[in-house]
Amino acid sequence: MTGAGTDHSRENVAGGPAIILVRPQLAVNIGMCARAMANFGLSDLRLVAPREGWPREGRFKDEAEAAAAGAVHLLASAKLYATLPEAVADLNFIWATTARERGQCKRVATPAQAMPENAARLALGERQGILFGPERTGLANDDIALADAILTFPVNPAYASLNLAQAVLLTGYEWFQAAHNAEAPFQLADYSPPAPREMILSFFDYLEGELDRSGFFRPAGKAPVMRRNLRNIFHRMHLSEQDVRTLRGMVVRLVEGPRALVTRRADDHQD
Amino acid sequence: MTGAGTDHSRENVAGGPAIILVRPQLAVNIGMCARAMANFGLSDLRLVAPREGWPREGRFKDEAEAAAAGAVHLLASAKLYATLPEAVADLNFIWATTARERGQCKRVATPAQAMPENAARLALGERQGILFGPERTGLANDDIALADAILTFPVNPAYASLNLAQAVLLTGYEWFQAAHNAEAPFQLADYSPPAPREMILSFFDYLEGELDRSGFFRPAGKAPVMRRNLRNIFHRMHLSEQDVRTLRGMVVRLVEGPRALVTRRADDHQD
Repeated sequence: MTGAGTDHSRENVAGGPAIILVRPQLAVNIGMCARAMANFGLSDLRLVAPREGWPREGRFKDEAEAAAAGAVHLLASAKLYATLPEAVADLNFIWATTARERGQCKRVATPAQAMPENAARLALGERQGILFGPERTGLANDDIALADAILTFPVNPAYASLNLAQAVLLTGYEWFQAAHNAEAPFQLADYSPPAPREMILSFFDYLEGELDRSGFFRPAGKAPVMRRNLRNIFHRMHLSEQDVRTLRGMVVRLVEGPRALVTRRADDHQD
Repeated sequence: MTGAGTDHSRENVAGGPAIILVRPQLAVNIGMCARAMANFGLSDLRLVAPREGWPREGRFKDEAEAAAAGAVHLLASAKLYATLPEAVADLNFIWATTARERGQCKRVATPAQAMPENAARLALGERQGILFGPERTGLANDDIALADAILTFPVNPAYASLNLAQAVLLTGYEWFQAAHNAEAPFQLADYSPPAPREMILSFFDYLEGELDRSGFFRPAGKAPVMRRNLRNIFHRMHLSEQDVRTLRGMVVRLVEGPRALVTRRADDHQD
């Protein structure tokens, strides 16, 4: 336990909550869960009595590893347990995922509600785990009775079937956002500073001068409102300095026509 | 356009933003995207030049429909376009999904940041679309140039590869939460009202009386702090009326031992 209060150290949250697959039916789904975990930096995978056996060996090994794609290291470090109580023995707080109300009087939360709490608890040194049931049936009531609270997913009630790896993916996604105050991994490309208003107004003066000359502002009585509308269109663009230079160059060409190629040809002839 | 301001009518948000798969490579992935859309109530699927052809016919039809599971209706209503400009012609605002910075000076947002804005725009009657590129390469720069802004996913930088259906799933998940102010689809089961404090205090009086009699509070100087600690343990449980009845019954049995079966046997003999 290295921190308290708001000291969310990277060490504590690094591995995230344990993902505990209870009696998963298909090895290929274990592989897909490993991949989803890797996407969001989860690393503690626990398997309780997988029906097709230990995905690191046996006849479903290749399927599981193909589904895990680049996350085979998570299959390699997964832990195998015969029973759920053994799998959760070292944990302090346990969530049970269910798709429907299961007749047990426990707190119910969505991943968006639960994961910020999870991140805070992990930062305090608490160990958390999240239970996912077998593909066809979900967790048994006795599995759920081992949990502190219920985690459920806000889905379209007309089509509520999330598969196992999708449920792990959404859980990991919310975990990662909560643990890392997730911002987009990159921001604006080729950042050009916003143009000073003086530069934009100078462009307007030039543009409106040319439009005036070309008879755009008609009837004359409408000219003030036409100018205002035009300026508002450009202001909405949050123009950068480079944008203003580009637009100005564009209007110059429209007004003046093609560059005087003749001059250059004359130069060519001098060679 | 039926509403303005905060009038988020169900009609407007029902179908959600268009999901536009640009040159998807595998029909099976189109099916998985349809399934992910159905999970979160998205219904406007558009396909631009799918490499394996139209998933409603041809040799990849069965694969696509199996992957769509119960969401075949979305494949049936999907629209096919030869080019991206045709696919986005009726839209007002377009997001381009990319996994990395792509050298285009556009606003960048995560789904959690973008979808509340999307829901608000749709409620005003604006039509939105989200572009997803081919599996291997992602969107081309010319595709991205058609978009208003960039959507990207906060993922573990060490393992950032989301597949196509996963990206659609996370987008749909955030859309559904934003559009429906998503709460958990069910709440506490078998709701028993929280016990009035009087009932809890009466239980404490009984429990502490029995513990006092059995010599639990030793040494005597520690008794006040021991009582306080014990009360705090029970208060943390947010006991319901039923919980208090259960706990009281439990203590009664521990104190009094097994029910007097002898009495019942005597009754039996009278029969």
